[in-house]
Amino acid sequence: MAGTNSTREQPFGPAPAVVLVNPQLGENIGTAARAMANFGLSELRIVDPRDGWPNPKARSAASGADWIIDGAQIFADLPAALADLNHVYATTARPRGMIKEVATPEAAAADMHARIAAGEKLGILFGRERWGLNNDEVSLAHEIVTAPVNPAFASLNIAQAVLLMGYEWFKGVATSLGQATPELAALAGPGLRAPDTRPATQDEMMGFFAHLESELDAAGFYKTVEKKPGMVRNMRNLFQRTNLTEQEVKTLRGMVASLTRAHLARKAKRRGE
Amino acid sequence: MAGTNSTREQPFGPAPAVVLVNPQLGENIGTAARAMANFGLSELRIVDPRDGWPNPKARSAASGADWIIDGAQIFADLPAALADLNHVYATTARPRGMIKEVATPEAAAADMHARIAAGEKLGILFGRERWGLNNDEVSLAHEIVTAPVNPAFASLNIAQAVLLMGYEWFKGVATSLGQATPELAALAGPGLRAPDTRPATQDEMMGFFAHLESELDAAGFYKTVEKKPGMVRNMRNLFQRTNLTEQEVKTLRGMVASLTRAHLARKAKRRGE
Repeated sequence: MAGTNSTREQPFGPAPAVVLVNPQLGENIGTAARAMANFGLSELRIVDPRDGWPNPKARSAASGADWIIDGAQIFADLPAALADLNHVYATTARPRGMIKEVATPEAAAADMHARIAAGEKLGILFGRERWGLNNDEVSLAHEIVTAPVNPAFASLNIAQAVLLMGYEWFKGVATSLGQATPELAALAGPGLRAPDTRPATQDEMMGFFAHLESELDAAGFYKTVEKKPGMVRNMRNLFQRTNLTEQEVKTLRGMVASLTRAHLARKAKRRGE
Repeated sequence: MAGTNSTREQPFGPAPAVVLVNPQLGENIGTAARAMANFGLSELRIVDPRDGWPNPKARSAASGADWIIDGAQIFADLPAALADLNHVYATTARPRGMIKEVATPEAAAADMHARIAAGEKLGILFGRERWGLNNDEVSLAHEIVTAPVNPAFASLNIAQAVLLMGYEWFKGVATSLGQATPELAALAGPGLRAPDTRPATQDEMMGFFAHLESELDAAGFYKTVEKKPGMVRNMRNLFQRTNLTEQEVKTLRGMVASLTRAHLARKAKRRGE
């Protein structure tokens, strides 16, 4: 299947290659491929996989990310796997005390986007299950990437490390696609709206308030004349900050009308109607 | 072992609870616990685990995060699991078209830090393996969190979803352990609160919903049995996204009670009392 579906292979344009160094279990290769697929990474390079290649366990653990497994390239050693790359990041659980830049996944992802935009080819190294990357391997990278983790419980498995890097990479993809990302929508305030409605107008809000307040007045809700203005204000604040839709205003007015007639429904029920 | 090692249990101070809703496989509970441990989360709540509890598979998959498995609390239903929480986030693979704020993990984590600093108790909901959270469950949350993912390959397993939320949470912990965090306050949006009140607990919200819904039922507001669940959900979504205070919940309940007695006040007025 490799090469049969190029839009799937690079659906979001050029991206860093994921380089797994000497992975031991096929399952981990597969779950790493799945994490790559989640975040638009598609180029998998595997250096000296312990159990050979192809590996049926990798495919089944990939949960459908077959195009990544099928397109994986196998290399005998790390220098061969990195030969055509311009810039290489080594993921490690802890900084190594090497004289090399140590970036967070977030900072590294920003760097990756800048380099990809400039036409560079990039790779991200992930070490073997038991003990990660050795110092010689790290020395082939241009910088180290270390995620902030609980130092008392710092081990991430390969798929999780790939997931975090992919996640940070894809944040930048989502932003550069220019889509209204959920984050932007959330920061803008009103949140997501069902497509078949629109925000209420101020006129509709005032109509609702007039309806609600006159019914509450009739019901004796405002205990004293002095307290009423403050109570009205609090209630208006509550509903205004909710950014109601037109439909919701209608529903709230329907509720108020129903509640004021609740006694009629009760009476009818008692009469067995 | 629960409670035997309090420094391990809350090594970085108060943090959100992770709430797994109806998880099916013990392995997934275990790997979720491991991801929690990676990022300093320690309070695990499990709603109706399919295979019962304790579950030896959960422990072995936790890879040493035993204190989380041992301290896990089991609940029969979701409202019970959320009773003491002030603010609840529902993780979903995609926005649901519900009228509720949708945040990225990053924005949600900033919000969590601001709320935790203000003394709130928080929970993050994660759905079952096959189909996540249902709409009724989502309607109990105050906001939705959705990570930017490749839309053609959007499914994350439970542990991966926990990992991303934990990762974003822990970035803020790491920052606050070392550096100043002005940007957290700037990003966060818990809204202005009067100083003399506190956010409503989920228990108080459920009490309000039960009151409102039973009165509306008595009033014949839900026209058909088929329509009722959707109408209930929409109304809960509306009030959950409002981030009500304890005082506001009391006021709303007072309003509902008043409205259902409006006819008595009218009658009294007509009699000239």
